[in-house]
Amino acid sequence: MSLCVALVHHPVYDKHKKVVATALTNLDLHDIARSSRTYGVERFFIVHPVAAQRELAARIAAHWQGGEGAEKNDFRRQAIELLQVVPDLAAAVAALTATHGRPPLVCATAARESAGTPVTFRGFAATARERPALLVLGTGWGLTEEVLAGCDVRLPPIRGVSDYNHLSVRSACAIILDRLYGDRED
Amino acid sequence: MSLCVALVHHPVYDKHKKVVATALTNLDLHDIARSSRTYGVERFFIVHPVAAQRELAARIAAHWQGGEGAEKNDFRRQAIELLQVVPDLAAAVAALTATHGRPPLVCATAARESAGTPVTFRGFAATARERPALLVLGTGWGLTEEVLAGCDVRLPPIRGVSDYNHLSVRSACAIILDRLYGDRED
Repeated sequence: MSLCVALVHHPVYDKHKKVVATALTNLDLHDIARSSRTYGVERFFIVHPVAAQRELAARIAAHWQGGEGAEKNDFRRQAIELLQVVPDLAAAVAALTATHGRPPLVCATAARESAGTPVTFRGFAATARERPALLVLGTGWGLTEEVLAGCDVRLPPIRGVSDYNHLSVRSACAIILDRLYGDRED
Repeated sequence: MSLCVALVHHPVYDKHKKVVATALTNLDLHDIARSSRTYGVERFFIVHPVAAQRELAARIAAHWQGGEGAEKNDFRRQAIELLQVVPDLAAAVAALTATHGRPPLVCATAARESAGTPVTFRGFAATARERPALLVLGTGWGLTEEVLAGCDVRLPPIRGVSDYNHLSVRSACAIILDRLYGDRED
């Protein structure tokens, strides 16, 4: 298995469906790194077009990888070391292509329905055992239509027991990784 | 179904296994409320023994339920309205007993293994359809042994694909609710 995760801060929608760049959220970085480490994810890309935000992400990562942070909490260090900061999704794809010698299967996620048939969680997990894959998550109000259209496949929205589907991206990522790789009882 | 969730800030362990009260985390409140709303949870209890921390939780909730916050983001309001702030777990149990006319089945969660046989996710979900139930989550380094021993049942730790089990409580809650009530493919 060589699944990677990318958290995209641009281009994503805001609540008025305007295309924006969202601010880095410290707990996105920590929570998604910890979930990634739990489920055997190979690398976790923070995607941000703004250099100052990329530097902030790198500085947070360095804190937990450096002496003081690692000593304080080695579990955080183990999670954070999966982190790689890139300016756009193409850079994440290029990095994985360079590592694996072939491009990853790029899989979009979205809380909203969109055209075409999504892959199943089980199907995508099976594919990702055969070839490198990149799971793409959007911040804000989700990945733009253009990003969705540029991905090879997409997973279905996560449904609970109601029409309410406003999970945080941190929660959605945890659930998706568990659906793909968790020790489910079935 | 009448499952409720309780997020306990005391008594929990710190990393040295000392019993402490942890500080309220704004994103715990939001993320767990949103996951709760997604999966049809009836009420979400914030359990904190310190009055100033309970007031802070209430103030955050009031912001999103009041004019400005609700107008800005009605989805947050819908999630936050599940919130109830209590000083200890007994108060949450008492509130549910008063509502339902009988005490809830209290179910512990922990990242570490402990003595005795845990219930299965499927088994607990079935039970919680028959009677009121309360899912208890610990902040910090987890619920104390005493709290675990005082619960009626407990769920097994969430396992990914490695020995690393340091999910955030926000992520763990999302995964547990999805395992209990998510729209599985099977």
